[in-house]
Amino acid sequence: MIEHPSFRIEPWAIREVGIDFDVLAQSESVFSLSNGHIGLRGNLDEGEPHGLPGTYLNGFYEDRPLPHAEAAYGDPESAETVINVTNGKIIRLLVDDEPFDLRYGTLNSHSRVLDMRAGTLARRAEWTSPAGKSVVVRSTRLVSLRQRAVAAISYEVEAVDPVSVVIQSELVANEPLPQRHPEDPRSTAVISDALIGEEIVSKGEQALLIHRTKSSDLRMGAAMFNQLDCPEQTLTESEALDDVARLTVATRLEGGQRIRLVKYISYGWSRSRSRSAVHDQVVAALAGARRVGWDQLVAAQRAFLDDFWAGADVEIDGDAQVQQAVRFGLFHMIQAAARAEQRPIPAKGLTGPGYDGHTFWDSETYVLPVLTYTYPVAARDALTWRGSTLPAAQEHARSLGLDGAAFPWRTIAGQECSGYWPAGTAAFHINADIADAALRYMDATEDEAFERDVEVPLLVATARLWRSLGQHDMEGNFRIDGVTGPDEYSAVADNNVYTNVMARRNLRSAADLVARHRDLADELDVSAEEAASWRDASEAMVIPFDARLGVHPQSEGFTDHAFWDFESTGADSYPLLLHFPYFDLYRKQVCKQADIVLAMVLCSEDFTDEQKARNFAYYEAITVRDSSLSAGTQAVMAAEVGHVELAHDYLGEAALMDLEDLEHNTRDGLHLASLAGAWTALVMGFAGMRSRSGRLYFAPRLPEGITALRFKLRYRSRLIAVDMTASTASYRLVEGPPLPIIHHGRSAELTERPVQLPVPATGRVLAPRQPYGRRPTARRASSGSGRAGPSAGSSTA
Amino acid sequence: MIEHPSFRIEPWAIREVGIDFDVLAQSESVFSLSNGHIGLRGNLDEGEPHGLPGTYLNGFYEDRPLPHAEAAYGDPESAETVINVTNGKIIRLLVDDEPFDLRYGTLNSHSRVLDMRAGTLARRAEWTSPAGKSVVVRSTRLVSLRQRAVAAISYEVEAVDPVSVVIQSELVANEPLPQRHPEDPRSTAVISDALIGEEIVSKGEQALLIHRTKSSDLRMGAAMFNQLDCPEQTLTESEALDDVARLTVATRLEGGQRIRLVKYISYGWSRSRSRSAVHDQVVAALAGARRVGWDQLVAAQRAFLDDFWAGADVEIDGDAQVQQAVRFGLFHMIQAAARAEQRPIPAKGLTGPGYDGHTFWDSETYVLPVLTYTYPVAARDALTWRGSTLPAAQEHARSLGLDGAAFPWRTIAGQECSGYWPAGTAAFHINADIADAALRYMDATEDEAFERDVEVPLLVATARLWRSLGQHDMEGNFRIDGVTGPDEYSAVADNNVYTNVMARRNLRSAADLVARHRDLADELDVSAEEAASWRDASEAMVIPFDARLGVHPQSEGFTDHAFWDFESTGADSYPLLLHFPYFDLYRKQVCKQADIVLAMVLCSEDFTDEQKARNFAYYEAITVRDSSLSAGTQAVMAAEVGHVELAHDYLGEAALMDLEDLEHNTRDGLHLASLAGAWTALVMGFAGMRSRSGRLYFAPRLPEGITALRFKLRYRSRLIAVDMTASTASYRLVEGPPLPIIHHGRSAELTERPVQLPVPATGRVLAPRQPYGRRPTARRASSGSGRAGPSAGSSTA
Repeated sequence: MIEHPSFRIEPWAIREVGIDFDVLAQSESVFSLSNGHIGLRGNLDEGEPHGLPGTYLNGFYEDRPLPHAEAAYGDPESAETVINVTNGKIIRLLVDDEPFDLRYGTLNSHSRVLDMRAGTLARRAEWTSPAGKSVVVRSTRLVSLRQRAVAAISYEVEAVDPVSVVIQSELVANEPLPQRHPEDPRSTAVISDALIGEEIVSKGEQALLIHRTKSSDLRMGAAMFNQLDCPEQTLTESEALDDVARLTVATRLEGGQRIRLVKYISYGWSRSRSRSAVHDQVVAALAGARRVGWDQLVAAQRAFLDDFWAGADVEIDGDAQVQQAVRFGLFHMIQAAARAEQRPIPAKGLTGPGYDGHTFWDSETYVLPVLTYTYPVAARDALTWRGSTLPAAQEHARSLGLDGAAFPWRTIAGQECSGYWPAGTAAFHINADIADAALRYMDATEDEAFERDVEVPLLVATARLWRSLGQHDMEGNFRIDGVTGPDEYSAVADNNVYTNVMARRNLRSAADLVARHRDLADELDVSAEEAASWRDASEAMVIPFDARLGVHPQSEGFTDHAFWDFESTGADSYPLLLHFPYFDLYRKQVCKQADIVLAMVLCSEDFTDEQKARNFAYYEAITVRDSSLSAGTQAVMAAEVGHVELAHDYLGEAALMDLEDLEHNTRDGLHLASLAGAWTALVMGFAGMRSRSGRLYFAPRLPEGITALRFKLRYRSRLIAVDMTASTASYRLVEGPPLPIIHHGRSAELTERPVQLPVPATGRVLAPRQPYGRRPTARRASSGSGRAGPSAGSSTA
Repeated sequence: MIEHPSFRIEPWAIREVGIDFDVLAQSESVFSLSNGHIGLRGNLDEGEPHGLPGTYLNGFYEDRPLPHAEAAYGDPESAETVINVTNGKIIRLLVDDEPFDLRYGTLNSHSRVLDMRAGTLARRAEWTSPAGKSVVVRSTRLVSLRQRAVAAISYEVEAVDPVSVVIQSELVANEPLPQRHPEDPRSTAVISDALIGEEIVSKGEQALLIHRTKSSDLRMGAAMFNQLDCPEQTLTESEALDDVARLTVATRLEGGQRIRLVKYISYGWSRSRSRSAVHDQVVAALAGARRVGWDQLVAAQRAFLDDFWAGADVEIDGDAQVQQAVRFGLFHMIQAAARAEQRPIPAKGLTGPGYDGHTFWDSETYVLPVLTYTYPVAARDALTWRGSTLPAAQEHARSLGLDGAAFPWRTIAGQECSGYWPAGTAAFHINADIADAALRYMDATEDEAFERDVEVPLLVATARLWRSLGQHDMEGNFRIDGVTGPDEYSAVADNNVYTNVMARRNLRSAADLVARHRDLADELDVSAEEAASWRDASEAMVIPFDARLGVHPQSEGFTDHAFWDFESTGADSYPLLLHFPYFDLYRKQVCKQADIVLAMVLCSEDFTDEQKARNFAYYEAITVRDSSLSAGTQAVMAAEVGHVELAHDYLGEAALMDLEDLEHNTRDGLHLASLAGAWTALVMGFAGMRSRSGRLYFAPRLPEGITALRFKLRYRSRLIAVDMTASTASYRLVEGPPLPIIHHGRSAELTERPVQLPVPATGRVLAPRQPYGRRPTARRASSGSGRAGPSAGSSTA
């Protein structure tokens, strides 16, 4: 399963010992640092070798043309695409004229540690040059969670033998990028030479580059300040050349002597501000960083994360691998969201260029639930960003002949960037997903300003969309035809159950909201008649049910289709989308990912227990999990219907998606939604957490491999600690006023004194079957045993 | 309706008096000459001005890349695209150093006549140069129906005033082409400089160019021989330069004196033959033309057409415009098919580059029925070409995980060239359409060699396709899910009625055929079990029916969809596909074209009279006829269910598609299938002709505007003459043995003595409604009145 077991299992760190060039790109994603505004892939300080160099600024993109083999009305002609901006990470080193390059010489030891409490990536290398001179290189890198525009690197070289060393600290724009994988739609387009130089300054310790993009016409600046701690008689020289600004530092070190460079880096970008304004902005950010200095940046970083973990940590006894992985996921989620500040949370955060850097429904449906209950301000910011794109979504709806707002399936700045409408624009459920995320955030925070400024406009615009997208038939049923649900192995079908139950909630909630906010209803021109039409549509919503089988068809007619021939589909034919045409996938019963199962998680109250059990078993047998979004959702429903061991297996799959590169594309960036799914599997699956109308529900049930689960939740100004074992669950209020909760259907009052409640025994249920060859890797056997040892030690080439 | 009424109504000619540069490209399509192997657009002899220069060779194409905004498995990466080959039509003229160009000087008179009995395009121009010198230019052009590789032009200049004239007769490769309409999917890609020169020779009266294509690696040759009839003291000079071979002829003419040039042109191409072989081939063809000479070429052309018209002509009393148009259609059909000889019949013949020069199901479903009953050898050749592409179709099926053969939706040489699979590969009905065309041809000819060599392999391969594409449900019904029917405003639906009834016939007929040809069954590895499974599938075929409405839904669920909002759709929003996204079209009840109505025409026996009437009325109200394929089919069914006036209107629309440029894209080539639809409307509509299992059925019924209809048919070695009026129909055997026929359900014996039978009166039926604004132009009012006068006289610019 894991081909390159490079990462050791530790509770609070991802530690790589040795280095394996074959998985360099994957490790760069895993070791990414970000604060949601700036993202630095975990490239080696010296720039090469690399898997994929990457420095990203949230919201900064170039337009690339979208070609179409056959033109059709409404096809988008271009797409926003994330680009690799000026690289400020590069610090090159020469040791007696030999470049420090891990591919040459002898690497006596090498380690990298992503410390999830410190928020830093630390590295240590002991290297002997081809000429036999040894040095120890230590670096620590951070992207500040406190100072949004700032990253910093502490870089130290210690001589073992007496040597001359030259350090070159650089800013490099328009780095050459390796070619991507054009046949894989999950990959991204490479835009090379995207940046046009506008200003380059290099003077003493400080340097700055200003560029703008050719087509999207955005402007960015990057600046560095290099602070040296070095022997006397060190020569420094700054220069600026085309797309490179460089400080060169040359010195001589005796054995045991060190040279240290602290590099402060700042970034800024703007759609409207002038060159000089952007210039001043990055220089000012740099001054802010220099003022506090390295030690303070490091301390503030840890303090920020201490606060985060205090309200978000999850502790697992019995499965050390998942323990590490769920923290890894939470860490990358906070990195993606902390300072995004009304910019999107892309599917891969700022860890790689996968999916063109676009944000999808992943953000609202998978990532925001975690943030809502652990770091709600970030959920608010992400939803506020969505709200800010309402004008573009309204324009998109108008172009489709619809009312309200049609949010883009994939985007950076709000434009529809999907080049394939059956799996793009037709996936209208994203509109209900956004509405649902707003409802969830409101339920969890009672944030009245958000309700008025963001939630009501979003709910009204999306309700209008649904009302115009659907129609009543002659019997009075409200239908939504010709749309694509979450499962991307079906498309453009009638009455997708997921879409319809989510749209129903959207319509009903919008009507409730405008009834409570008459002034906003007036502002938004919502009449009582219009609101009533939303209620009518929601009440008359068609939810197809196949009475012969006793299950819901995913969409109308789905259960009449032929089953996929799983027995004849070899392991190397997955993911199916890379080996079979959509034509074949769409017409058969095969699910890329949880669809109706997700509906049963999100709209739990709309399905009976029997429906949940039967639907789960039915869809389990045809769901291949070619989407990284799936396993976490399947874990939650598996746990709910009694398959706790299976839930544990799915938890493992979701949690280890990137640490084990399960989909073989971690090189392009991390799967944030899958990592979020690990938290969801634990909290909504094993703890059975649901919330509805101000009430929190729990239904704990643990698999054998997990002996205890402890986690914290934020809900309506409260911080709640949950502590579960196989037999009991304990609930405690850490902060805030008392709150009633429901534990396995039984009410209890949550106070500062723990309430301890017994976990009812679950009867054994027959495990459902997965498609041939698609059973998840079992965790029970492997739990606690950890991974095989890393490919440690030196690696030379 | 008609913006540029340039063409006069005459029974056997299309005559343009004057010239209108605004419709130059349309007139070039209308005046195209072709023999099915070579196609010359009706460009002016002097090359400019032009709408779109065009010279085509059937089957000669270049590959162009098909870009995809999002890659998906199985998307074709390139498409065969017709290219403009070496232009041999060009004859430039200088009059006292002033180029003869209609845009300058004074055009005293200009006329062009396409003579449908002679098979020539004749032109006469009286022109006064800007310097005041007048000449009369006469040219006649033909593409020989007898000599497949040959075209010829007689070009004569008569001086009115004494003048010096220079004539330049040329072969020009890689002509610059005007940009096309990239937003219109019906248009085509422009491939410029497609040809790479291999050989150029120009010596005396003869010249030759050999080129090959860059990517498809096909080789073509063009040669000319110029025969002069001129005053003494005429200077001639030949030269060759890059992509041009030229003969220049300079002379002096006194008033009334003439110079005449006969230009013989030959073409050849090959995928495999060498440069020297192609060279010899075109020179030999040229020699063949020179041997017989101009007068013989002209005489042979007329003789060929006399034979054709003797078995194919249709005479209409009462509607002169349709009379002209139906002959125009038949003429272009024979031009497209006569010498295609196992090459495809493209949707636009060889009259323009529209649809990339591809052939679609149009050929088998619309064009071949006409040829089958009028010129059956061309139908045989076209089907033999299809049969020759079986290996590619079998490979295509394999790539889709299917058995048998999956013919391409659009192609030149057999590869799938559709860049949009929901309206391409998913339109599997083309396979049943091909099978049906083979069955029809066999029924009409009893051609046993064809049956064994072409029909059986085609039927077996397509039956295998259907058997693997469909599947039985638990109740034993045979379903075909996720395919696209004829109506392109729906896509990827379950159990399309058209597809299923046609597949049913295909399966059943294949089983019958292999039962009769045991040896072929063995050769093709068809076991009794396999054939039985075809029969089972055909008998269990699902044909959805909506009992609430008493109509067949086009596909499952179709009648539950919302109706298109026709009232809010303005006339300038048609065709809808250029103004609305497919997303919107697919999910609503709106039909681009006849779908189930076509099923009722082709599989007449599968529907009751009541179903036909109800279905017709239902679909009539939602069919917008954005496809030129539609009107002819609607005419047939309108006539059958009693709406003869409406049928007349649709006949007019089908027949006048190109003469009146109803879809505004005649510039890109003629709509052969629509033109075929005029014949079909008359013969299958007003005469009610059907054939089944060796029997011919007629059910005559004429609209008021048509007082008599006379036509000939070929059927099973017989030539049959039908002569109808409102009250009686007379049937006569022109050639061949007696044959029983059925007239309005009554049997009669067809012999050399006419059988005269009364036409029963039809009751008045309530006319069905069309979508708002989409009622066809009524013919009754306009019948016989003819068009408004042409924009005659001179036109200068």
